[in-house]
Amino acid sequence: MSRVDVGIVMGSDSDLPVMEKAAEVLSSFGVSFEMSVISAHRTPHKAAAYAESADERGLKVIIAGAGGAAHLAGVMASLTAIPVIGVPITSQLQGIDSLLSTVQMPSGVPVATVGVNAAKNAGLLAVEILALSDRVLKDRLKAYRSELVKEVERKNQAIQASRSERSE
Amino acid sequence: MSRVDVGIVMGSDSDLPVMEKAAEVLSSFGVSFEMSVISAHRTPHKAAAYAESADERGLKVIIAGAGGAAHLAGVMASLTAIPVIGVPITSQLQGIDSLLSTVQMPSGVPVATVGVNAAKNAGLLAVEILALSDRVLKDRLKAYRSELVKEVERKNQAIQASRSERSE
Amino acid sequence: MSRVDVGIVMGSDSDLPVMEKAAEVLSSFGVSFEMSVISAHRTPHKAAAYAESADERGLKVIIAGAGGAAHLAGVMASLTAIPVIGVPITSQLQGIDSLLSTVQMPSGVPVATVGVNAAKNAGLLAVEILALSDRVLKDRLKAYRSELVKEVERKNQAIQASRSERSE
Amino acid sequence: MSRVDVGIVMGSDSDLPVMEKAAEVLSSFGVSFEMSVISAHRTPHKAAAYAESADERGLKVIIAGAGGAAHLAGVMASLTAIPVIGVPITSQLQGIDSLLSTVQMPSGVPVATVGVNAAKNAGLLAVEILALSDRVLKDRLKAYRSELVKEVERKNQAIQASRSERSE
Amino acid sequence: MSRVDVGIVMGSDSDLPVMEKAAEVLSSFGVSFEMSVISAHRTPHKAAAYAESADERGLKVIIAGAGGAAHLAGVMASLTAIPVIGVPITSQLQGIDSLLSTVQMPSGVPVATVGVNAAKNAGLLAVEILALSDRVLKDRLKAYRSELVKEVERKNQAIQASRSERSE
Amino acid sequence: MSRVDVGIVMGSDSDLPVMEKAAEVLSSFGVSFEMSVISAHRTPHKAAAYAESADERGLKVIIAGAGGAAHLAGVMASLTAIPVIGVPITSQLQGIDSLLSTVQMPSGVPVATVGVNAAKNAGLLAVEILALSDRVLKDRLKAYRSELVKEVERKNQAIQASRSERSE
Amino acid sequence: MSRVDVGIVMGSDSDLPVMEKAAEVLSSFGVSFEMSVISAHRTPHKAAAYAESADERGLKVIIAGAGGAAHLAGVMASLTAIPVIGVPITSQLQGIDSLLSTVQMPSGVPVATVGVNAAKNAGLLAVEILALSDRVLKDRLKAYRSELVKEVERKNQAIQASRSERSE
Amino acid sequence: MSRVDVGIVMGSDSDLPVMEKAAEVLSSFGVSFEMSVISAHRTPHKAAAYAESADERGLKVIIAGAGGAAHLAGVMASLTAIPVIGVPITSQLQGIDSLLSTVQMPSGVPVATVGVNAAKNAGLLAVEILALSDRVLKDRLKAYRSELVKEVERKNQAIQASRSERSE
Repeated sequence: MSRVDVGIVMGSDSDLPVMEKAAEVLSSFGVSFEMSVISAHRTPHKAAAYAESADERGLKVIIAGAGGAAHLAGVMASLTAIPVIGVPITSQLQGIDSLLSTVQMPSGVPVATVGVNAAKNAGLLAVEILALSDRVLKDRLKAYRSELVKEVERKNQAIQASRSERSE
Repeated sequence: MSRVDVGIVMGSDSDLPVMEKAAEVLSSFGVSFEMSVISAHRTPHKAAAYAESADERGLKVIIAGAGGAAHLAGVMASLTAIPVIGVPITSQLQGIDSLLSTVQMPSGVPVATVGVNAAKNAGLLAVEILALSDRVLKDRLKAYRSELVKEVERKNQAIQASRSERSE
Repeated sequence: MSRVDVGIVMGSDSDLPVMEKAAEVLSSFGVSFEMSVISAHRTPHKAAAYAESADERGLKVIIAGAGGAAHLAGVMASLTAIPVIGVPITSQLQGIDSLLSTVQMPSGVPVATVGVNAAKNAGLLAVEILALSDRVLKDRLKAYRSELVKEVERKNQAIQASRSERSE
Repeated sequence: MSRVDVGIVMGSDSDLPVMEKAAEVLSSFGVSFEMSVISAHRTPHKAAAYAESADERGLKVIIAGAGGAAHLAGVMASLTAIPVIGVPITSQLQGIDSLLSTVQMPSGVPVATVGVNAAKNAGLLAVEILALSDRVLKDRLKAYRSELVKEVERKNQAIQASRSERSE
Repeated sequence: MSRVDVGIVMGSDSDLPVMEKAAEVLSSFGVSFEMSVISAHRTPHKAAAYAESADERGLKVIIAGAGGAAHLAGVMASLTAIPVIGVPITSQLQGIDSLLSTVQMPSGVPVATVGVNAAKNAGLLAVEILALSDRVLKDRLKAYRSELVKEVERKNQAIQASRSERSE
Repeated sequence: MSRVDVGIVMGSDSDLPVMEKAAEVLSSFGVSFEMSVISAHRTPHKAAAYAESADERGLKVIIAGAGGAAHLAGVMASLTAIPVIGVPITSQLQGIDSLLSTVQMPSGVPVATVGVNAAKNAGLLAVEILALSDRVLKDRLKAYRSELVKEVERKNQAIQASRSERSE
Repeated sequence: MSRVDVGIVMGSDSDLPVMEKAAEVLSSFGVSFEMSVISAHRTPHKAAAYAESADERGLKVIIAGAGGAAHLAGVMASLTAIPVIGVPITSQLQGIDSLLSTVQMPSGVPVATVGVNAAKNAGLLAVEILALSDRVLKDRLKAYRSELVKEVERKNQAIQASRSERSE
Repeated sequence: MSRVDVGIVMGSDSDLPVMEKAAEVLSSFGVSFEMSVISAHRTPHKAAAYAESADERGLKVIIAGAGGAAHLAGVMASLTAIPVIGVPITSQLQGIDSLLSTVQMPSGVPVATVGVNAAKNAGLLAVEILALSDRVLKDRLKAYRSELVKEVERKNQAIQASRSERSE
């Protein structure tokens, strides 16, 4: 039976275009994951059951994305002791409500919050956490960082090239 | 056995000075209530049990106060079909986080939100709701409104008196 | 003569696309309602007359939507003792002005505020209030909640299906 | 019978320390005024009566101060055609709610808004308006402006003096 | 020689679509006005000259619109004793910067601020001020207010009509 | 030689009263840590050296607290592949600047952000991460969660006791 | 070998459309510059090397643009003693995060911040700084200012012309 | 006759405790300066005269501090071509109004803005600008940076010392 390391949950299927970025990152690192629509407010029992069974099902990290009064990550965090990463998703008020609802958790129940819509970074943070006990992942992370450097450098060279063309 | 109409819940005992205003209003109207410390994040099972049993225990309204990523009212609302009134409580960020976390609920699960720290208004809103099927309460509400008018008028006269004294 | 339980009022006909969501919810629950354009600032006398006659006309709940310096719900609440639900509507400043103008009411005069543009939730909150003394409505609310759960579950399964297709 | 040119109204006697600055300015310019506690929400009928009778009572300008969901100036403006100056007063949220509730009025019903707690400027603005048809007031305004210049200059010289003392 | 009562100034010709609403209102009331592009920051001397000559040129009111660090109204107000109305115009930050830059004036130099982009209300406020010593304008204002009431009523009836059609 | 699992860094010694809460939590869980004052802006080389050597020195998690334009966590995250937890610390603007500077990281370089001044939660998040590969820590976490529940329950009972005393 | 006076750096090539405005201004003043994509977070070593070598390479001013948790200007400022101008660039949250991350620097390490997306002003500020020791540049600046005046005047005349046409 | 390089101006003597930090920095670097109270709104002519004569009087940089609708730096910048540094000073709204009024300048007229109350950084920025053509100042800046590093290191060692004492 295949092990799943990361559970990606989102409050609505309208969050999918954002949350898929987390899935893509995990795929590219070879990290197993599952992806579910679970609403803290509309399906509270399922949310609770998901969080409470996460540890024994072998999940290591939960990534939860939601917008507005974004409680999904907080509900997850209140019912499991594995790390929960919160992704605030753009809302009527741009996402400042989602951000504050996700990050300002009470003492005792942390949520590791990333930027508004930053599901890709949520995936990377999950990888960093898993890499603490997985040498292969750590090597991939280092390779990823090197690739980031190269990508910026490529963009830099494209600008230089375009500018020198224009000045010829 | 004494019936209890309103359940006042708060995330922490530090919220008590604010939430007591709701209790005082309910007392002054002769509305029965209970008051509990329940945390959406620290005691999620108790919060769920409270909300799920509210209706059959005879509660008509829940008033929930919390600060920061204030999910208590939302958790209550997700697990009961009786009206839930949310009181955002002052936080590190003045209460704008508490307000947005309480009011920006997703479609399907409303929270009747009052102003920051406005527990007294939460109590009055509960009375208004109960008064829909309780003629005595409705009469008391009208008397309360008349008293509000008189109180403002008394303050007005005090200012007039103080000003005419000074001008003598 | 048909009884009307809920009065939906809005400051301008430009608010109609938002406020119609409240009407749709009430319709779907079989709750009678009326819908009017009344401006706190442009038709203050009509606004006052509406609020003052609401109780005797048999209204149980008023839902008021407005944007900007959104005073309509507050004006209603100042002149009736039935519950008033406020819907802040998107404005030049996204709706933060509408929200604060609606929710930050002074002590003594509560407005039950829902999220920005959340007229559907305003309708549901009205149903919750009416259901306190209407067993049929309460049953419909419970059915609605069950339907919410199923809808989220359907969305969840659609995502699982789409993902397993892609991975085949 | 003494004529009164300016009506100062405030939502609560707790607003008096702020609103007295408007009274002081008007006094210093010899402008007649009256000062009242009237609440848009707690005494709506009195607020309406005040605004509606303002013009025939001879008032030229109304200055209205309130905090939170600050509707007093807006209510005044909706029921009179004389200019209404709004003073947003500090609140739980510092006054940003008071400011937005006062200034973001709908098309057709303006409120001349000054800064948070800026009752002195509200008084000055009233004087400027009255001075349009009162040569004596206009002269006093010009003298006031000259005095402002001198006051800043005195403060400047005090700093220069204190600095040259220290450097001796 | 034709007298001009109101000077409309704006920081850039890109503000024209907003500020034209002030001109339209003044035109419809028969109030004479002039309209100029003057920048507090790019043409400071012209701005100063405009404000300083306003009174002797016979202007009664200045309406100044600007966005971002919106200083135009403040500069005007610092150099004339006639009332200055400020119109904050939408910016990169939606207009909250424009609003705060316009309204938060220091003690001694008021700007009568209207809502973001609310140039129409600025025009109306100017009319209200001028109407204090112009009976014809006051009558037109009252007629305008009556028309506002009728317009809202027409919109209300349109909604009633559309709803009854649909329910047939 | 004693292993150190968590590095706590802060931008200034004035941040110590906040950041000590992280140290206390780690101590109570028996997690080894070190605590340093390192400024992203005043000691950039030391900050870089700290982050770059973290992994090989055996650190598993870095907790970085800073206020204002809070770059310390971001600098750490840019130079190591171990998880970095950011603690935004109260500033001139209450901490909203600190929060946004910490959480809104660019794609590729996540910071696990907790609430404003929430150093205790930062410590707990570090424990959750370490507990993924440390059964003893996981058991302590579960005990901690149970203790949280009991603490809330004790507070609840204190309120019940105090209320029943008063009602006797 | 051609000297370069100003280094323009940006966090991503997506910032190019904004930052090119700085380049255009510098070109029009005849100031030499270079333009690079360097990320504080993705290429921290290159960012550090750039800042540390800036002075000895002869750069006089660095202009750094970035969005979100915008640390690029701060990183530059922490590693060089030449003036660093920061350009906050529009983000998910409109740019308020970029602005606060750029401007709220700790004591000892200033960043000269301009408005959101105001790269043109960043270029002009660089010219003002360079003009302190370059008489030709100072003359060009004065000519530029004169041109600004004329441009505003042309826009003003266009409005006057268009209005008199319409009134004919 | 002693040359003065930097002009420090502030809108009110109440800004002195903040602005003195700029003076202290300049003194410590041996940079000559003058300090004046000049109000953009209360003494507009003096403000204009100050800015217009700055260049010919030999000033190289102006540092302007103001709060609320903080226009002083903008007025200075509009009338001189030497660099103007703006210091937003804490206000009723914490300083967010001051910051936005200072930084969001229109295209063509930049203000080099530092953080809220960050007068010390304004002084340092002035030194950085002057140091471009003053080798002695540049050396002092480098020494200052080294001292910053040492100061942070001393604070770090104090924490280490205090912690090892406690653990003994």
